Amino acid sequence: MQGNKIALIAFGGNALLKETERGTQGEQLKNAEKACRVLMQIIKRGYKLVIVHGNGPQVGNILIQMEEAVTKIPPFSLDTCVAMSQGSMGYMLERAMRNQLRKEKQSYEVLTVITEVSVDEKDEAFKKPTKPVGPFFTRYRSSMLQKEKKWVMVEDSGRGYRRVVPSPRPVEIVNLDAIIKLIDQDFLVIACGGGGIPVFKNAQGLYEGIEAVIDKDYTSALLASAINAELFIILTNVERVALNYGKPDQQWLNVVTVDEMKTYYKEKHFPAGSMGPKVEAAIAYIERGGKEAIITSADKLKEALDGTSGTRILSLNAVVS
Amino acid sequence: MQGNKIALIAFGGNALLKETERGTQGEQLKNAEKACRVLMQIIKRGYKLVIVHGNGPQVGNILIQMEEAVTKIPPFSLDTCVAMSQGSMGYMLERAMRNQLRKEKQSYEVLTVITEVSVDEKDEAFKKPTKPVGPFFTRYRSSMLQKEKKWVMVEDSGRGYRRVVPSPRPVEIVNLDAIIKLIDQDFLVIACGGGGIPVFKNAQGLYEGIEAVIDKDYTSALLASAINAELFIILTNVERVALNYGKPDQQWLNVVTVDEMKTYYKEKHFPAGSMGPKVEAAIAYIERGGKEAIITSADKLKEALDGTSGTRILSLNAVVS
Repeated sequence: MQGNKIALIAFGGNALLKETERGTQGEQLKNAEKACRVLMQIIKRGYKLVIVHGNGPQVGNILIQMEEAVTKIPPFSLDTCVAMSQGSMGYMLERAMRNQLRKEKQSYEVLTVITEVSVDEKDEAFKKPTKPVGPFFTRYRSSMLQKEKKWVMVEDSGRGYRRVVPSPRPVEIVNLDAIIKLIDQDFLVIACGGGGIPVFKNAQGLYEGIEAVIDKDYTSALLASAINAELFIILTNVERVALNYGKPDQQWLNVVTVDEMKTYYKEKHFPAGSMGPKVEAAIAYIERGGKEAIITSADKLKEALDGTSGTRILSLNAVVS
Repeated sequence: MQGNKIALIAFGGNALLKETERGTQGEQLKNAEKACRVLMQIIKRGYKLVIVHGNGPQVGNILIQMEEAVTKIPPFSLDTCVAMSQGSMGYMLERAMRNQLRKEKQSYEVLTVITEVSVDEKDEAFKKPTKPVGPFFTRYRSSMLQKEKKWVMVEDSGRGYRRVVPSPRPVEIVNLDAIIKLIDQDFLVIACGGGGIPVFKNAQGLYEGIEAVIDKDYTSALLASAINAELFIILTNVERVALNYGKPDQQWLNVVTVDEMKTYYKEKHFPAGSMGPKVEAAIAYIERGGKEAIITSADKLKEALDGTSGTRILSLNAVVS
């Protein structure tokens, strides 16, 4: 039985499917097992754990598979592809986590929740799709898809043409009630995979799927607030957030108040599509009443929990008290 | 708020992906919506509903997509493909069900549970794989896969070579505890899709994936018993079960005791891979203490619930009382 404090951790799909590997199932499973060993650090500290994973490379692979088989099998839209990746990745992580818990004689049970997340149809992102997904196409195939499917295609530095899709903000976690009840009932919940299956509410108040991707950092911040998580951890590929990253005057951040972080954010220290959304997610979570957000790497998670690594973002109250 | 009685319904993946259609996402969604309108008949009678869907044609499509992209993306094993189909089909059914419930002003909430189901590694089925899955291969590719992956391949009446996999019996629904708690908390649960993701417990008591398919009829019977369902419905393409099906002396069955049904089963009235597993699942459920099993078609579900169609299998006690 875990304590009453909830920790939510978010990490990218590249934690399982690494650029340096071939992306086989065996490799992904091994990486899932490694990730789960690391996550035990949180569980051992008595937290109830909620896992949000990204799915960038995995959904990319599904889109490539659908395109390769396009003359034989009708391809699915992006929302359904996200649902598929929630299935496969949820299964890999859930099995690895359950086994790790059993190895360490913990009775904590794990569940993967297929999660729909609604977005606002009028989100500015729909006016200007920016997020490249799926395979590189030839000019011919690209023009076909542009015409037939009304896809927005962009040329990608000589490597071919790629589809770009909108990345709207998450508005509502459709399955939130179930997630809350499962946490209450002492389940380790894997939810909102890939930022959630993108849906929107139509004029009749009914849900429809929509072709978009939702940033898992924003969704995880929304979920962390909604479940009153005491701790929100975002894993990335560096140990700490830095000011002037990669420049001679680079400065690692240790503990910062949310107001300081907002100032740094406005000063454009954190690039979009990389550290930007993570810092923004952490700020949003603290501003909605969250206690503590940590941005760190998987390798340094233990030290970050001990307070000797990672960047902690705290409310001013937490720093003063 | 639903009553306390639980009904479990099982239907095949062909309820969404029909042989007479092209299998597009639009068609599958439309079929899901139609299925959910039919399922309202059960909900309106006050039952808490649990849905188990098959995934035959859907997982077949995933396997074809993986094979078509095999030179680009490493394909997944069958257990992970089942997990993917649980994601996509769960999403389609869940969204359709939620919308239908909203249309009918019901506050009942829906959740899809990625479900692992363990099998016995020593199940006789592993000695003789019989279930064909996925694409037809040329003789050359077939021999390659036979050698590289140790797949068992069979020639399929001139159409090429196909992989056959074992279809072992389900032993344990790994996520049962969560399913029970979600039903308790008034969720309509979609679980055990495709009969469940096949796993087995290794010598260390840890779960591993295994290349197999589990019959959704057997898994749904196991789940119906485990959650103490009052009613277990199996949908098929005929209104009733028949003796001497398709013969001049064909006789439709209306209400039968489990003992009568066992006699008919032993007399081999019900072909394997078709009505056989459905009848066997119904018998197993009643023998484990279940009250009432109905085998009918989606079109006749309303009438079957009213008692004017379908084949009901009852315990002797239920018939006498």
